[in-house]
Amino acid sequence: MDIPSHDLERAVGQFALLPGIGRKTAMRLVLHLLKWERKDVDAFADSLHELAANVRYCKTCHNICDGEECQICVSAKRDHATICVVESVQDVMAIEATQQYNGVYHVLGGIISPMDGIGPQDLEIESLVARVKAGGVAEIILALSPTMEGDTTSFYIFRKIADHTEVAITTLARGVAQNDQLHYTDELTLGRSILDRKPFKS
Amino acid sequence: MDIPSHDLERAVGQFALLPGIGRKTAMRLVLHLLKWERKDVDAFADSLHELAANVRYCKTCHNICDGEECQICVSAKRDHATICVVESVQDVMAIEATQQYNGVYHVLGGIISPMDGIGPQDLEIESLVARVKAGGVAEIILALSPTMEGDTTSFYIFRKIADHTEVAITTLARGVAQNDQLHYTDELTLGRSILDRKPFKS
Repeated sequence: MDIPSHDLERAVGQFALLPGIGRKTAMRLVLHLLKWERKDVDAFADSLHELAANVRYCKTCHNICDGEECQICVSAKRDHATICVVESVQDVMAIEATQQYNGVYHVLGGIISPMDGIGPQDLEIESLVARVKAGGVAEIILALSPTMEGDTTSFYIFRKIADHTEVAITTLARGVAQNDQLHYTDELTLGRSILDRKPFKS
Repeated sequence: MDIPSHDLERAVGQFALLPGIGRKTAMRLVLHLLKWERKDVDAFADSLHELAANVRYCKTCHNICDGEECQICVSAKRDHATICVVESVQDVMAIEATQQYNGVYHVLGGIISPMDGIGPQDLEIESLVARVKAGGVAEIILALSPTMEGDTTSFYIFRKIADHTEVAITTLARGVAQNDQLHYTDELTLGRSILDRKPFKS
């Protein structure tokens, strides 16, 4: 596709660097931006400049935040003895959205994945072990994705902190999802949910 | 979704203004940007500033360009007596990509669509009529989408320039698409392609 303007070409190229956005979509987005007022496009661009300049990661849990520590880590209302270990900032937001958790977090920044060349040393695992060693931790919840990579990462972390017998190590419940049709649930999940059956509560 | 950083929140909000991008996708894109080097994010933002500041529209055909007139309109190699009327800049690029057209263009900047409140006065139709009146035009190709809005717009333009009997008014051939399965072609298209059948050339 021959692009008739150098600046257009450049902006399209930048958008096309984003994941899931090809050159055709990038062109559609940029041509949409051209319909905006100039000040609105500038506001868009400024928001990216400020993002790059200002966003920091919490020194304790590695969640995204504006200052030194995130609002969850500095909150006196949270249970600092319970640490929920997650892969990414999105997972923190997803769990926070449930309003069912009152502990703190530890964001690994990824998951062990030899295929993508990501090993334990690329993740915030040592800093998690340091938090456990520092004491005051009663429970570590391993809340990683129920995939092979997630399970591998959970197992790796488990071995690193298993010596600390004072710390309970738990993981998310697995089973049939709320509102799922039973006959569409995959065999592995359904089989495990029968083995892990629980007393019925009315 | 509770977003833990003001700058993150703002960038996500900006991305979510783009068509086809919801807040979850916006969050994914912005978190991806955060993995980039700061200079690369700044380059992204700068490309948008420069886009807003520099991109102009050709004074003749209203295609996007860097200067006063686009490269197609200033080219001596193009046939300036043939004007292809299209809806958008993307259509110019699509037709240029075929390498089958050597005339010039006229970009309407949209299509007549009462549902979206777009009337003839919102489009570059008067300037097209002015180009025809100025003389030197042998053919106008109405290359709008084969939809009700496209046909309405074509008919409106046809009535505006039909007085100029020296100008041939043509439109794109319609029929079965190259490599389409015949039995999947819709009835309207297939019916019309039988009525408009052409002598077979071996």
